[in-house]
Amino acid sequence: MINIAILGYGIVGSGVACVIEKNKKEISKKAGDEIAIKYILDIREFPGDPYENKIVNNINQILDDPDVQIICETMGGIRPAYEFTKRALLEGKSVCSSNKELVASHAPELLRIARENNCNYLFEASVGGGIPIIRPLNYSLTAEKIDRIVGILNGTTNFILTKMEKEGADFATVLKEAQELGYAEKNPEADVEGHDTCRKIAILSSLMTGQNVKYESIYTEGITKITANDFVYAYALDMTIKLLAISEYDIENNLNVCVAPFLIARDHPLYFVSDVYNGIFVHGNMLGDSMYYGRGAGKLPTASAVVSDVIDAARHIGKTITCFWDDNAIKLNPMDEYRGSYFVRAKDTPENIAKVQELFPDFVVVKQAVTGDYAFTCGPVAEKDFNEKIALLPSGINSRIRICI
Amino acid sequence: MINIAILGYGIVGSGVACVIEKNKKEISKKAGDEIAIKYILDIREFPGDPYENKIVNNINQILDDPDVQIICETMGGIRPAYEFTKRALLEGKSVCSSNKELVASHAPELLRIARENNCNYLFEASVGGGIPIIRPLNYSLTAEKIDRIVGILNGTTNFILTKMEKEGADFATVLKEAQELGYAEKNPEADVEGHDTCRKIAILSSLMTGQNVKYESIYTEGITKITANDFVYAYALDMTIKLLAISEYDIENNLNVCVAPFLIARDHPLYFVSDVYNGIFVHGNMLGDSMYYGRGAGKLPTASAVVSDVIDAARHIGKTITCFWDDNAIKLNPMDEYRGSYFVRAKDTPENIAKVQELFPDFVVVKQAVTGDYAFTCGPVAEKDFNEKIALLPSGINSRIRICI
Repeated sequence: MINIAILGYGIVGSGVACVIEKNKKEISKKAGDEIAIKYILDIREFPGDPYENKIVNNINQILDDPDVQIICETMGGIRPAYEFTKRALLEGKSVCSSNKELVASHAPELLRIARENNCNYLFEASVGGGIPIIRPLNYSLTAEKIDRIVGILNGTTNFILTKMEKEGADFATVLKEAQELGYAEKNPEADVEGHDTCRKIAILSSLMTGQNVKYESIYTEGITKITANDFVYAYALDMTIKLLAISEYDIENNLNVCVAPFLIARDHPLYFVSDVYNGIFVHGNMLGDSMYYGRGAGKLPTASAVVSDVIDAARHIGKTITCFWDDNAIKLNPMDEYRGSYFVRAKDTPENIAKVQELFPDFVVVKQAVTGDYAFTCGPVAEKDFNEKIALLPSGINSRIRICI
Repeated sequence: MINIAILGYGIVGSGVACVIEKNKKEISKKAGDEIAIKYILDIREFPGDPYENKIVNNINQILDDPDVQIICETMGGIRPAYEFTKRALLEGKSVCSSNKELVASHAPELLRIARENNCNYLFEASVGGGIPIIRPLNYSLTAEKIDRIVGILNGTTNFILTKMEKEGADFATVLKEAQELGYAEKNPEADVEGHDTCRKIAILSSLMTGQNVKYESIYTEGITKITANDFVYAYALDMTIKLLAISEYDIENNLNVCVAPFLIARDHPLYFVSDVYNGIFVHGNMLGDSMYYGRGAGKLPTASAVVSDVIDAARHIGKTITCFWDDNAIKLNPMDEYRGSYFVRAKDTPENIAKVQELFPDFVVVKQAVTGDYAFTCGPVAEKDFNEKIALLPSGINSRIRICI
């Protein structure tokens, strides 16, 4: 029997208990041993809960118990999760985490401590919820030079954008609906400003490069400025708008990483990733295009990923599984130097039209679909040059969106 | 240094050499040691080839060399691949195979021999080419009861169907074009009659159940009867036609496995898997829907999957990785008892119309799009009942296609 503890009995933590209970037989078979929940750490009490008698409020009870071999860290946040994880690993207890903030900020150190103590720090649930993506990157696409990852990594924003597209509604209206449905939090900033997506692409980029991609250095733009009128043009261009996280090497082998809303064409595999689903597109130099799709959030899918880590840890007691993510922070190409294509809705004035023709030699006019717009696409062009030129338009713009190519 | 041998220097075998050469640095890092090709077995000679001096024509030279720890079996076919694989595993050499015929017919025995000799029989490349699917099933979706797999597993037929849909062309015309482009073989039977897909779903079903799903017992229907007119209706129904391999438990926990062309709706993730791409949809009881997409064939993607197995084998020298696929043959639900929905193009006669109304209480008329058709959908109904009723239509039918729901 392998005893585990769950830190944090919230949505994901209670999901872990639920998955272990529901699929007990399969999980024992796959793990090679029965997985038993010995403790659940939470400061709250849960009277009447089936796991009521497992609840403890002192981490030491768990860390000091040599019977506990694996710990699920489903608390979220940096503190005290960081300290608890570190202490557990130092005790040789493997930690399986759904905590993207902690993984994005401290994984290299925690992975090193795990190696030094012959245990594992695993975090399949930190990106893409139930979609297997961490393990495919670490175990499956090992013969590849992965040169590009593009992800739809946040279910809330994808739900909002899908609804805006379908209903022709504006951001604020749909956000309110999403909040009422429980798909968006009361304080939606982490989702709609792209911070959540940013943590996740930092994790994927680090695994892609084997070095440390710091989330703080990733250019991040949210979806709050996207309007119903932008979708009118997306439709006309046979595209849609998605909040994408992109991590890719350019031709000079600089690493570009950013999070922003992008126009994406119908022939891209991510075009069809709608509603709360996530999709992760991975390009390798031998494999070409591949894509992984599923539920990027939610109690049971996320918990299922945590439990798959528990099974992996159980299969590797006393042995650290290879994971390349070293401390060395990789320098990202500044966003100013990112070369992309753009869609622009300039204000429809003769001055603007003349200036666009002067400044953007490769511009392509998009048929006007909204009164007041002079719409065009341009690029590829360096972001800095684009921004400088756009600032010169005498009457200003209504919006500009990058195009994923 | 880990020495490997490649059996069969054909498309995949030479791809393996190419991938190892091109991504040498990454592969050594991931494997934890340098991977060196010591021998390539082929009865042909390859004068001028960079690996010319590695070519041997006697398997004993490879099997008797204790330096060779891992073997890539890229020969295809049952004999002599089966004998070579068995002998290699008995010598404690891991075997990484792209050979779906051999895997589908002999995996349980070969996995057992590998276990008994502390080595590995791995076959990521046998299904979905470069798409990671075997390892995600074995290592990632371990906390799930997987209850449904639906796959587009053959690039040739998917290319043909995509082209038929886009161009409104008939099967024979498109097959000829595909043969000219090298996407279909001169003898296309294994692809277009569904045999290749059948082997692959046998493998996935076995991993899903942990038991042995014999490919000979899988109902298999190819795409040769699909016509341009069928696509006219698919379009009208907002669907398309795909050759699907389906493996699923029904509500009575019977396992249904079949290969056949299916109508599939636009809101299904496999709808968008076009051209030579493959897609594998997996449903788990906790995870819900997930999907894996990429190049299902081709020299480098397939070779990349073989090399990922080599890396996995290199990481597990002397230790067998868990894979549940036992000898016990699972009984499949007879196709007669499969309950599905159907689209029918009956011949447009008053007798047929009257009979349809009498026989199919739940029928829904589909607007006539082709002269001579009386088109309708019906079901869910047991295949046996459906076939008996259809046989009673006095004027016969033009076609019938199952609907994926």
